[in-house]
Amino acid sequence: MAESAPRLVEQVMASITRRIAARELASGAKLPSIRQLAASQGVSKSTVVEAYDRLAGDGAIQARPGSGFYVTGRTAPFALTEVGRRIDRAIDPLWIMRQALEGDGDQRPGCGWLPESWLPVDSIRKALRTAARGAGAGLVDYGTPLGFPPLRQQLERRLGERGIAAPPSQILLTESGSQAIDLVCRFLLAPGDTVLIDDPCYFNFLSVLQAHRVQAHGVPQTPDGPDLAVMEQLAARHRPKLYLTNASLQNPTGASLAPAQAFRLLKLAEEQDFLILEDDIFGDFAGEGTVRLAALDGLERVVYLGSFSKTLSASVRCGYIAAKPEWVEGLTDLKLATSFGNADLSARLVHQLLTDGSYRRHVEGLKTRLAGARSETARRLEAIGCSLWTEPRGGMFLWACLPDGIDSADLSRKILTEDIVLAPGNVFSISQSAGRYLRFNAAQSASPRIFEALARAMAD
Amino acid sequence: MAESAPRLVEQVMASITRRIAARELASGAKLPSIRQLAASQGVSKSTVVEAYDRLAGDGAIQARPGSGFYVTGRTAPFALTEVGRRIDRAIDPLWIMRQALEGDGDQRPGCGWLPESWLPVDSIRKALRTAARGAGAGLVDYGTPLGFPPLRQQLERRLGERGIAAPPSQILLTESGSQAIDLVCRFLLAPGDTVLIDDPCYFNFLSVLQAHRVQAHGVPQTPDGPDLAVMEQLAARHRPKLYLTNASLQNPTGASLAPAQAFRLLKLAEEQDFLILEDDIFGDFAGEGTVRLAALDGLERVVYLGSFSKTLSASVRCGYIAAKPEWVEGLTDLKLATSFGNADLSARLVHQLLTDGSYRRHVEGLKTRLAGARSETARRLEAIGCSLWTEPRGGMFLWACLPDGIDSADLSRKILTEDIVLAPGNVFSISQSAGRYLRFNAAQSASPRIFEALARAMAD
Repeated sequence: MAESAPRLVEQVMASITRRIAARELASGAKLPSIRQLAASQGVSKSTVVEAYDRLAGDGAIQARPGSGFYVTGRTAPFALTEVGRRIDRAIDPLWIMRQALEGDGDQRPGCGWLPESWLPVDSIRKALRTAARGAGAGLVDYGTPLGFPPLRQQLERRLGERGIAAPPSQILLTESGSQAIDLVCRFLLAPGDTVLIDDPCYFNFLSVLQAHRVQAHGVPQTPDGPDLAVMEQLAARHRPKLYLTNASLQNPTGASLAPAQAFRLLKLAEEQDFLILEDDIFGDFAGEGTVRLAALDGLERVVYLGSFSKTLSASVRCGYIAAKPEWVEGLTDLKLATSFGNADLSARLVHQLLTDGSYRRHVEGLKTRLAGARSETARRLEAIGCSLWTEPRGGMFLWACLPDGIDSADLSRKILTEDIVLAPGNVFSISQSAGRYLRFNAAQSASPRIFEALARAMAD
Repeated sequence: MAESAPRLVEQVMASITRRIAARELASGAKLPSIRQLAASQGVSKSTVVEAYDRLAGDGAIQARPGSGFYVTGRTAPFALTEVGRRIDRAIDPLWIMRQALEGDGDQRPGCGWLPESWLPVDSIRKALRTAARGAGAGLVDYGTPLGFPPLRQQLERRLGERGIAAPPSQILLTESGSQAIDLVCRFLLAPGDTVLIDDPCYFNFLSVLQAHRVQAHGVPQTPDGPDLAVMEQLAARHRPKLYLTNASLQNPTGASLAPAQAFRLLKLAEEQDFLILEDDIFGDFAGEGTVRLAALDGLERVVYLGSFSKTLSASVRCGYIAAKPEWVEGLTDLKLATSFGNADLSARLVHQLLTDGSYRRHVEGLKTRLAGARSETARRLEAIGCSLWTEPRGGMFLWACLPDGIDSADLSRKILTEDIVLAPGNVFSISQSAGRYLRFNAAQSASPRIFEALARAMAD
């Protein structure tokens, strides 16, 4: 795909740089909005977007969420993007997170969650009314150190159904799945350690590992799980402390670990003596035959985590960790030190939602609806010349390969001017080898406008 | 105070150690409850408590919250208590946090929050019902990166009343005040950095700094703020990156920074080039004349934070950070990386509670009621021979000095057997120089039984 008007982009960049040098735009000053500058300079919005992105990439200006672009002042003492690998600053993981979180009213096939209309809003309203009638202590007190006991009992049963034996004393509630990952990393890792991740993987794994100042190495993903031959070589060479992975319906590819792979992976972890953090936040979307490492391993060298952000609500946030008894104490200490208690109200609401009987029906309904949405989205993607890397057995994601010669970051930048937020492949790839891929959320891809705009942009 | 029956304690310890050595109690096995063992060995419960504490201190056994004591297995990869200074393991900060969080139905003069009956439970019920009727998106979506905009606008006005100019774009919502501290430490500090704290200070400051693998040095606290002469020496010697302190009504002493001290402190920070993290979670309890470093400094080298856990609810958790524009971006990146969004529901509930008009009346009522409780508690403390280190101008805490020869850790251990949870001075003191002090929460000290038990235990 041709770079759109590179000369114009550079002209816009030069004019901004001049104004900063001349102190017309002082440190901290707000830049004109994209629309304003496009109008005043007589260029397209996409030209301004690219100019701002590149200036931001140079560190001259910075985006401030919900507000616009500003002239950079003194650099921040700790910037995630300055630590470790620098991933295409114009479209990096934090860029995509912010776009997806901010774009109100936009089409967001690139985002990682279900639309409001798919979630059990009425059940949540009911749970809030129930909480309003409940005991006062639950509304104002700090929770117990491990978190609301009845929810941990519920979780014991739910994990038991997945073959994971964990009594409530081995289950620690957290504010979210993200907080759970952060907490486990803090507990198991020290700065300078090495961690294996999937390539591609959930982009936030890269950010959180950077925040922990550890070295990450990517293991190529196959439709049956990580490439174990490569993993073995990496493990022998780098002596990793941890392998961080999705349990099932891998983000972004939708791949699921085959049972034979799971067994070999655990043997490898034992031989090479690394631990595994198994993030199963999509676990409720997975089918019956799904294998969990934590179940095979008995929580010996696997720490397991989940949350309800994907099936219930991302606003009523609640995650959990299941770990071996010897580690629960230290994890709890760290949780108290860094967040004191829990949002106990959220835990109570989730417990209420799990016990009112509608959760299973809700999840079954979601599975059926997602299967339909995946088929429909796959059909539309194929109609515009994209192919699927694998056919996921559940969940919301499709990993789509673009036609030859189309770069997914370019395409994402371009189509953002039509208020469509995509998830370009390289934000998920530590090796930056996924430039031809896009992650599609089937539940957010119902509008034909998305595929019309994509077809136009690809032909451009 | 005489050590209670040291010989018996050692007998109990020896019997447990023998059973562990003989594998009668295997790694991970649960120990008999305190009551059971006291009965079976014919000793007092306090003897067993001390024996278990000392065995836990030796690492042979460990307490598991809400569950009891267990034989230790393989040691945890990262234990807070193993990093940096080791503070009297038997009664360390995490011990006190757990005791205070767990003791259901106990008397808890040592805990750091208000009782349920002091908090606006009916307003929270109303806010929940309002939320149940609100737009569905607020109940299920991730929030925007900085957090619910109307609450940040509210906070701009509230901080403005305290003289702190911070537009909503400089205010970042967090899950709690604790998470805010953790996030700022992560942003500003690197492992091995040096940080100044007050001595005594909020015990969790010590834990969170240990989690960040930084060196902490204590500055003696005076009733007008930190001892600036000592601070200057420490700053010159150790080149600290940060000074972490309470803005007003310091925890545990109740001291407030005098304006002239505040000015000199900021000049010192400038001369010695360190930053300040001003934790103002007790800010709503402070009176009119309270000075904030962030107000004087204009958020240049001060980062300011607060929460509503102390005045509204610790279950509906919501904190915030106000910082200079150049730092908001990096803080937001870190927040997204480590906790993705916010518990947006909590932010919406807090916003509802702040706008329904009753919050100011509630806080004014709390101030009056706390003033009464402080007087009453002071009177009772004096009646049993304790003296106050200073007379706080607000808030819930009194820093009480015990009569000569009484050790507050011994007293706390002893009185725990009567289901009274105290906060012994040395959990707040990095230099371990507060062994004669106890922190009293006036709002949790209404029962005469507490002071009767204290008088008995001190005479023992």
